[in-house]
Amino acid sequence: MKSGKKSTPEGDAARQHSATKRFTERGFIARIRSMCAGGDNDLFAGIGDDCAVIKNTGIHSDWLVTTDSLVDGVHFDRDWHPPRLLGRKAAAVNISDIAAMGGQPRFALLAIAISPEIRGQWLDDFISGFLEQLSAHKTVLIGGDTVGSPFGAVFTITLIGQGEPEKIMLRSGARAGDSVWVSGPLGGASAGLSLCRAGHLDKKEIWPELFKAHLDPDPKVALGMILGQSGLVHAMQDISDGLATDLGHICSESGVGAEIEEELLPCPENLEAAAHLLAHDMVDWQVRGGEDYQLLFTAAAAHDKLLVDLVQKKAGHSIFRIGRIVTGNGVSLLSTRKNAARIDFQGFDHFSHE
Amino acid sequence: MKSGKKSTPEGDAARQHSATKRFTERGFIARIRSMCAGGDNDLFAGIGDDCAVIKNTGIHSDWLVTTDSLVDGVHFDRDWHPPRLLGRKAAAVNISDIAAMGGQPRFALLAIAISPEIRGQWLDDFISGFLEQLSAHKTVLIGGDTVGSPFGAVFTITLIGQGEPEKIMLRSGARAGDSVWVSGPLGGASAGLSLCRAGHLDKKEIWPELFKAHLDPDPKVALGMILGQSGLVHAMQDISDGLATDLGHICSESGVGAEIEEELLPCPENLEAAAHLLAHDMVDWQVRGGEDYQLLFTAAAAHDKLLVDLVQKKAGHSIFRIGRIVTGNGVSLLSTRKNAARIDFQGFDHFSHE
Repeated sequence: MKSGKKSTPEGDAARQHSATKRFTERGFIARIRSMCAGGDNDLFAGIGDDCAVIKNTGIHSDWLVTTDSLVDGVHFDRDWHPPRLLGRKAAAVNISDIAAMGGQPRFALLAIAISPEIRGQWLDDFISGFLEQLSAHKTVLIGGDTVGSPFGAVFTITLIGQGEPEKIMLRSGARAGDSVWVSGPLGGASAGLSLCRAGHLDKKEIWPELFKAHLDPDPKVALGMILGQSGLVHAMQDISDGLATDLGHICSESGVGAEIEEELLPCPENLEAAAHLLAHDMVDWQVRGGEDYQLLFTAAAAHDKLLVDLVQKKAGHSIFRIGRIVTGNGVSLLSTRKNAARIDFQGFDHFSHE
Repeated sequence: MKSGKKSTPEGDAARQHSATKRFTERGFIARIRSMCAGGDNDLFAGIGDDCAVIKNTGIHSDWLVTTDSLVDGVHFDRDWHPPRLLGRKAAAVNISDIAAMGGQPRFALLAIAISPEIRGQWLDDFISGFLEQLSAHKTVLIGGDTVGSPFGAVFTITLIGQGEPEKIMLRSGARAGDSVWVSGPLGGASAGLSLCRAGHLDKKEIWPELFKAHLDPDPKVALGMILGQSGLVHAMQDISDGLATDLGHICSESGVGAEIEEELLPCPENLEAAAHLLAHDMVDWQVRGGEDYQLLFTAAAAHDKLLVDLVQKKAGHSIFRIGRIVTGNGVSLLSTRKNAARIDFQGFDHFSHE
């Protein structure tokens, strides 16, 4: 946003909102402008021109760019997802992609395609949550697009981050002999989604972590940067489509295989109770469930202790070794209760429901 | 796209496509990867990681970033819009935003949210057209997202370009006394759309320029850069929502007004005939019709001839003076056939149909 050029966007917004009550694109954009707190020293021009302009400061860092769409009825359900939390999540899942490469999120763009039924307080709350999450990660909204749509809602977010060239983590660096790590419990987001779908919203109070995992996930920005800067990590990504699928990506990009031990998978509180209530296999949520937004990474097994200590010291954070990288290809799940099973790419495929 | 990391994306793609015939996200992404020609020296990692990585080359240039959504049934109609041309247009309208600031487009991201009915040849043709337009403007696809949607299609494109800091044109620099210029004929895209809507596809052969203006517009990249580098232009943007609305943006961002002369508005071939056929006011198309993607810019009136000569010499291109910037605010249309009329912000508002 250009500071000081436009005299009173707040005034414009208030006028548009209260005087006419009619929802216009200009009024909505003016309102978003007025909700954006401050700017960024590296931003020359933001909302209000054809493009945002990011200054080249010449600092020794590369740019990370990612985009994701959230579709009404596919990625979220307005029946149970409070709009503020949905806005927070829309920012979080994209910030998580920057975190997954060890980067610092900087700038965001938000393209909104919405049907007439989605307006007013719902939309204001969504935007508030979105900006709140950006702000928590020192990220500035620099542009976007607002268009009408005959049906539902599609929110498409583009996130731009920065990272030191040598510290950016790709999927392609895993080597046979590496340990496979995750940054936290798995399966919580799937369990939370299943509970919402089954109408168990009464469990929100007693199993809060499962609902939070689905409704309001935290991107692991600080941890991602510590891991990138450690020089110990070979490959990294976040878990968005499920462990089986996302580890499958690391394996196929690195030309290796992986073995995961079922007994090592970290479990969120109350996952077992939720699995019992819904008669669902808990391990299925952990292995195939998506959207946990934990970091998934590999490092030489010789550095296991070093990595645990470093992360504990710098982030006050535990990490969990769940298996190893092997020669070959694909992801296998080892279990004491049944035979090893090949599980790669068994997570969420956006077109698989057809 | 990372070159040489992934052994044979083409092989993967072909296998996915022919062996199973089932449409999967992985198969589709592999196919897009195989269709992307070459890479870019400034691209460290493209499709295949959580983010694309753009190298900081330290060259004296800033980054321009823009995003736009195209919605099925709002921005395009699959009944008459051939998918290859729609793909070309999806890229063109975003490239035009870079051109509007005098920049060079460099990188693109494509987020696709599509319902099951949109698949196969249609989607391949759309992607082909999209990549063809990118390639014509030396722009590389570096990432994206593919998700299922219950209804229709939303394509959201993010474009990243570069420009020299002092040569980037904003909307906010217009001054009273400037001449107002456009880069070419106005109203063609609206006439083309109206002809398509009214079922006059038989006129495609005899009025090709009207149909091309709507179906396959050309972004004015080279001209935008020449104008930016001329040092003569005070404010610039492209005409996407219509002259009245877009000149309104320049006026409100610059704190000035504008007077447009109806008789000076450049007219595409056959616009009058189309207006006669559809019993529509031709000037309404020129003033309020959107999507012409001409450049709209202002420069000191004292430089009128200098600017015309420079553009003719460097781009072999004519430009058209349509009015002047004045003190005050708003956009007025002067006409010999009726009284002056205030016309700012009378173009397309994405929520105005409600």
